Amino acid sequence: MSEFKRLTDMVLAFRDERDWQQFHNPKDLAISLSLEASELLENFQWKTSEEAVGKNSENIKDELADIVIYALLFANETGIDLVEAIEQKIQKNNEKYPVEKAYGSKTKYSEY
Amino acid sequence: MSEFKRLTDMVLAFRDERDWQQFHNPKDLAISLSLEASELLENFQWKTSEEAVGKNSENIKDELADIVIYALLFANETGIDLVEAIEQKIQKNNEKYPVEKAYGSKTKYSEY
Amino acid sequence: MSEFKRLTDMVLAFRDERDWQQFHNPKDLAISLSLEASELLENFQWKTSEEAVGKNSENIKDELADIVIYALLFANETGIDLVEAIEQKIQKNNEKYPVEKAYGSKTKYSEY
Amino acid sequence: MSEFKRLTDMVLAFRDERDWQQFHNPKDLAISLSLEASELLENFQWKTSEEAVGKNSENIKDELADIVIYALLFANETGIDLVEAIEQKIQKNNEKYPVEKAYGSKTKYSEY
Repeated sequence: MSEFKRLTDMVLAFRDERDWQQFHNPKDLAISLSLEASELLENFQWKTSEEAVGKNSENIKDELADIVIYALLFANETGIDLVEAIEQKIQKNNEKYPVEKAYGSKTKYSEY
Repeated sequence: MSEFKRLTDMVLAFRDERDWQQFHNPKDLAISLSLEASELLENFQWKTSEEAVGKNSENIKDELADIVIYALLFANETGIDLVEAIEQKIQKNNEKYPVEKAYGSKTKYSEY
Repeated sequence: MSEFKRLTDMVLAFRDERDWQQFHNPKDLAISLSLEASELLENFQWKTSEEAVGKNSENIKDELADIVIYALLFANETGIDLVEAIEQKIQKNNEKYPVEKAYGSKTKYSEY
Repeated sequence: MSEFKRLTDMVLAFRDERDWQQFHNPKDLAISLSLEASELLENFQWKTSEEAVGKNSENIKDELADIVIYALLFANETGIDLVEAIEQKIQKNNEKYPVEKAYGSKTKYSEY
């Protein structure tokens, strides 16, 4: 079985044991993804990358996991095939950021 | 090969063709995760879930993919095994939200 | 004395008594603004507006205040005249959203 | 007239000319505050504070203004006296971060 499918099944089992699907509309799941991303970012507030990773590695790992857990829930709720979506988005990014323009540059595609 | 490994390899190839690892410190990757989560959330601003999903499904799919793409980059850069991190976090959430307390309730664990 | 000046002076006095200006670079202040906005938003997770405001009014008030406190610190650190910036932005928004196009519509200006 | 009152009146006039109060429930305003804070933060992605402020000062000023504009709208919609809320929050922060513990330290109060 695919890893995404296996992890999604684990997350859905966790959700359903608690009867939580009733709360999981896409808008609140999108809010939750944003909140979890902030909780990851909070580990870096007032710190360099090195200080943050050195001091908060366990919390960083947990918050990163929470982000992907909510991504799996969101994908399930909205019928998105996450693996396919990622493959297609990498392809789109390839077109938005052609190597000859993007090489070594942090300019956003909209400013090319 | 695992799906996470295969997708990570695709994302790293995209990054390295552009010589972008030099920009990818964990703090800026955490910022990027937060920005992508906001871009997903923007699809729901002033809208119900139904309106948003009905109107913006293609952009929603792209932004969700971007979040996971940055999660793969962040995990790679900080040496986190993302599959293991997710499994461990589900286990922690099981302990934080025992079924008998959490069933049908949206109360946060810190308020039990 | 202007209210913005008086509140800014209070916030700077708080900061300087703790010798915190050393941490207050614009990038970390921008991160802090984003984190505080998330803490406000967290009050609305899984809730309607009415449930959130009814249940969490004290925390909502505190988090809103924290956002503006960081806005004052950010403006001070970057030399922005916040009152002038707000007046100019309202003027720009007037041009971006002409009444005849924007009346009763939640369409973003980029989609006009 | 107080500056906060005067700016709030300007923002409400802008809103009412467009008949937008119908969209401005507190939950969507909180989402909007978070989105605007992200737009400010985006100016700092992949950049030092100096690079960002040097390159994007006009956009930084606009996004900071948008944050405070939404804070004024949110306060108006929820009946919060923003000036009083800020004064009270500074007082609370004084108690949470006593000078003798907080001086020169970036430790969060919850870790004292």
